[in-house]
Amino acid sequence: MVSNDAVTLVEVGPRDGFQPIGPLIPTATKIDYVTRLYDAGVRRMEATAFVSDRAVPQLADAAEVLTASQALPGLAVQVLVPNQRYCDKAIEAGATFISFVLSVSEKHNMNNVRRTTQDSVEEYARLVAGLPAGTRLRLNLATSFDCPFDGAVDPQAVIALLDQLVPIRSDAEIALCDTTGRTTPSHVRALFADAIARHAGPSWAFHGHDTYGLGVANVLAAHDAGARVFDSSFAGLGGCPFAPGATGNVATEDVVWTFGKMGISSGIDLDRLLDVAEDGVTIAGALSGGRVRNALHSQRCATGIA
Amino acid sequence: MVSNDAVTLVEVGPRDGFQPIGPLIPTATKIDYVTRLYDAGVRRMEATAFVSDRAVPQLADAAEVLTASQALPGLAVQVLVPNQRYCDKAIEAGATFISFVLSVSEKHNMNNVRRTTQDSVEEYARLVAGLPAGTRLRLNLATSFDCPFDGAVDPQAVIALLDQLVPIRSDAEIALCDTTGRTTPSHVRALFADAIARHAGPSWAFHGHDTYGLGVANVLAAHDAGARVFDSSFAGLGGCPFAPGATGNVATEDVVWTFGKMGISSGIDLDRLLDVAEDGVTIAGALSGGRVRNALHSQRCATGIA
Repeated sequence: MVSNDAVTLVEVGPRDGFQPIGPLIPTATKIDYVTRLYDAGVRRMEATAFVSDRAVPQLADAAEVLTASQALPGLAVQVLVPNQRYCDKAIEAGATFISFVLSVSEKHNMNNVRRTTQDSVEEYARLVAGLPAGTRLRLNLATSFDCPFDGAVDPQAVIALLDQLVPIRSDAEIALCDTTGRTTPSHVRALFADAIARHAGPSWAFHGHDTYGLGVANVLAAHDAGARVFDSSFAGLGGCPFAPGATGNVATEDVVWTFGKMGISSGIDLDRLLDVAEDGVTIAGALSGGRVRNALHSQRCATGIA
Repeated sequence: MVSNDAVTLVEVGPRDGFQPIGPLIPTATKIDYVTRLYDAGVRRMEATAFVSDRAVPQLADAAEVLTASQALPGLAVQVLVPNQRYCDKAIEAGATFISFVLSVSEKHNMNNVRRTTQDSVEEYARLVAGLPAGTRLRLNLATSFDCPFDGAVDPQAVIALLDQLVPIRSDAEIALCDTTGRTTPSHVRALFADAIARHAGPSWAFHGHDTYGLGVANVLAAHDAGARVFDSSFAGLGGCPFAPGATGNVATEDVVWTFGKMGISSGIDLDRLLDVAEDGVTIAGALSGGRVRNALHSQRCATGIA
């Protein structure tokens, strides 16, 4: 199972990680984290989201963070948008890589973006049609495995939705998201295998949370099935304000360490990343996660690395 | 990959979990934990070890804990011994299930049991020859994947050692142990597949630590390759005093939850186990681990379960 194929990690800490934090993080501090993550080797990042300031005051500075992130050479900067209106704002602010989200679960979609899943599918089609030429696109399918309100999600519902969504833009990157962290590697492996076998066009990504300790295990299962793009958050920051009990995203340092042990490159320097992650846990109001940071901390101190 | 085959969990908390705890846990408290774990459905347990009182004062009450544990109907109670002398003491105290340990890594074996690996192999052969008829046997191969002193362990060294060890008693249960928690699922899957293909006689077990967050992922990899017996520790208690940086065993509640989600029975009642685990973290001097306990804690409180 060991492979030397490189993987792409999408650092979602500045969006998914910062989003649920109550105390406002100064914009300059956010940009400093983005820059340090870039310096550690991160080359894809979900830097912010264009969403309602009222619903998510923490991300009200999206335009500034976007501009600063896009100034870093070679960094692919995606921004999350929930609908056409906020997509327009993102494009106006200079975004060149849009991340759209809809949920397989009706209840979660209603809670997250206040419309039915089918309405979101139609919104996605309109949004794709209106994107400026050359705009890159990520489609996030939230609750692809499990819903905080309804529990396990039928894989056939995901496949049926993909049959609608993939033809809308067959070269989009599609992330199947474990929103709650409650799925298991066997479920992840099976759904990715089915989706990939059915739709060769998209590139496939996995977005998972580590609430039940299976974050990295699920990443590896998606990798086994052919996914090569993985979302993760430095220091395991994250959570979903609309998914009760869902704590952090899988920690970037845990994913980098694990792939590294398997001889699979993520292009990220673990030591530099750990320095950023150690600081990330100190952000006021942050909920951190992951294991590798603590496991390596004493060694790093003992050998004078940190 | 979903299977309905049942798995056997060996609860090692009362041995591996209690062993590194400094403050002495009263014998009655230990027996209470053993009993409550049994009441939650545990049917195999490493209840204690017969080792030097001076080296491990926490387990000086081994004989009492053994007697009380063996009084529980249907509970298979194994006790760890490092050599012939302590095996004799265990048998004398009434043990009917011996767990012997040796390390693939010379340095770790020297640190752990103060002799070369080859001397331990010969000790194992003598010990097996002298066991009373009907005594069950578990052989733990420590550092089968990674050594705290020497890093990654060559799989061929493990296979060569198994070629010596398996014929000594071909129906023993053999545990390949990830002593440091630094191995990856791909390594675990490959080594178990090789070992099982080569030696059909033994039943195969996996003993892992969760230091780097891969405890459950490695359990699932061993399961994929055919292992059906897994060591785990309630509340993720554990660690190895001779393996610097190795924190807790994989948490029993994490393993029970994960297999449960996959439709695989461990025979253990998660709610009752969680009650014991929540108390386990409060033991003075204990280092706890695992994720599921915290993830479910708020839900259990909210619904009045705990």
